[in-house]
Amino acid sequence: MARVSQQHLDARRRQILDGAARCFARNGFHATSMQDVLREVDLSAGAVYRYFSGKEELIGAIVAEVLDTVREAFEEAARQSPPDPPDVLVGEVMGRVVYGEHVRGVTVEMPRLLIQVWGETLRNESLAELLRTGYDAVRAAWVEVVEAYQAAGLMRDDIPAEHVARTVIATVQGFAAQQALFGEAPVEILQDGLRGLMSMGAQRPG
Amino acid sequence: MARVSQQHLDARRRQILDGAARCFARNGFHATSMQDVLREVDLSAGAVYRYFSGKEELIGAIVAEVLDTVREAFEEAARQSPPDPPDVLVGEVMGRVVYGEHVRGVTVEMPRLLIQVWGETLRNESLAELLRTGYDAVRAAWVEVVEAYQAAGLMRDDIPAEHVARTVIATVQGFAAQQALFGEAPVEILQDGLRGLMSMGAQRPG
Repeated sequence: MARVSQQHLDARRRQILDGAARCFARNGFHATSMQDVLREVDLSAGAVYRYFSGKEELIGAIVAEVLDTVREAFEEAARQSPPDPPDVLVGEVMGRVVYGEHVRGVTVEMPRLLIQVWGETLRNESLAELLRTGYDAVRAAWVEVVEAYQAAGLMRDDIPAEHVARTVIATVQGFAAQQALFGEAPVEILQDGLRGLMSMGAQRPG
Repeated sequence: MARVSQQHLDARRRQILDGAARCFARNGFHATSMQDVLREVDLSAGAVYRYFSGKEELIGAIVAEVLDTVREAFEEAARQSPPDPPDVLVGEVMGRVVYGEHVRGVTVEMPRLLIQVWGETLRNESLAELLRTGYDAVRAAWVEVVEAYQAAGLMRDDIPAEHVARTVIATVQGFAAQQALFGEAPVEILQDGLRGLMSMGAQRPG
């Protein structure tokens, strides 16, 4: 029997995840059946179940992959000294998630998928746990970036780095929600907006 | 037959909307039946249907009310000259929505409700239209605030005001998503984060 190459296995896994992401984004997690996923990826049940036991595992793998991409991007950023400013980093990271190799094929659907995942998270404790862990890691990476800004004198250092980290992540989450709800919009809008806020200055109290 | 006072009608309407919001936030829009709403508000079907024809009308009224509250708050802010900075305004507006008179009784559930509404919007065109109209009005109010900052020399004026407006709204949407997904958090976190960003400064290119 012919050996199946790792490359082939990876490509197959990728194909299934991308197809499932499209289904979930289009119709929601609940309204999507494994049959829909099989049809979308044009593979047999045997081929798909070899990789994933069901919808739960599919959505979990998609979420983990996106969060990993985001975390890696910010960890890389934190290693520069000083890191690029938030408007630049946010553009880079949103570019990776939406157009990145890891999630090719789900370009337009990503923001819609995010909204679906959030809704599902409210009712699904294992997904909530996965999202919480991934979010904690992204936040920790951003805290390092913020501490580097503060150490370099680029940002007031009397503000908890975690609060700034949560706020920058919130801009990305909120902007993605706007894309899902009101239509595609270039990330440059968010980058401009961050630059506008940054230009305001903020005095230390007293 | 006794006349029913306007005050009584308003209080009854309020009671129904608050109860429905709690149900939707807890179990999602789809999993909530009108029976659930009747049980939650402890009223007869006749009493409830006098005000609302069904779930669609309930969710629509809740969304319209929240968006009106937010829009009014920003319109008020735009009339000051110059308006308070974004960190102050965001705190005021989130305070009104979460603790405000208009939505009393749904304090903790509001962020969860938001996530539910977003998910439902992807599949429900009339709700999507309502949300789009309300969002446009909120954005227009924020554009005026940003233009006032720019006119007062408080913010770079070479950045489209609409981009800053979208970004500030995104921080609120994203922060609310974090509250829904990861638990209650005081709005002071977001206010701190905005001050941190504002303190960075942003040079004009060239």
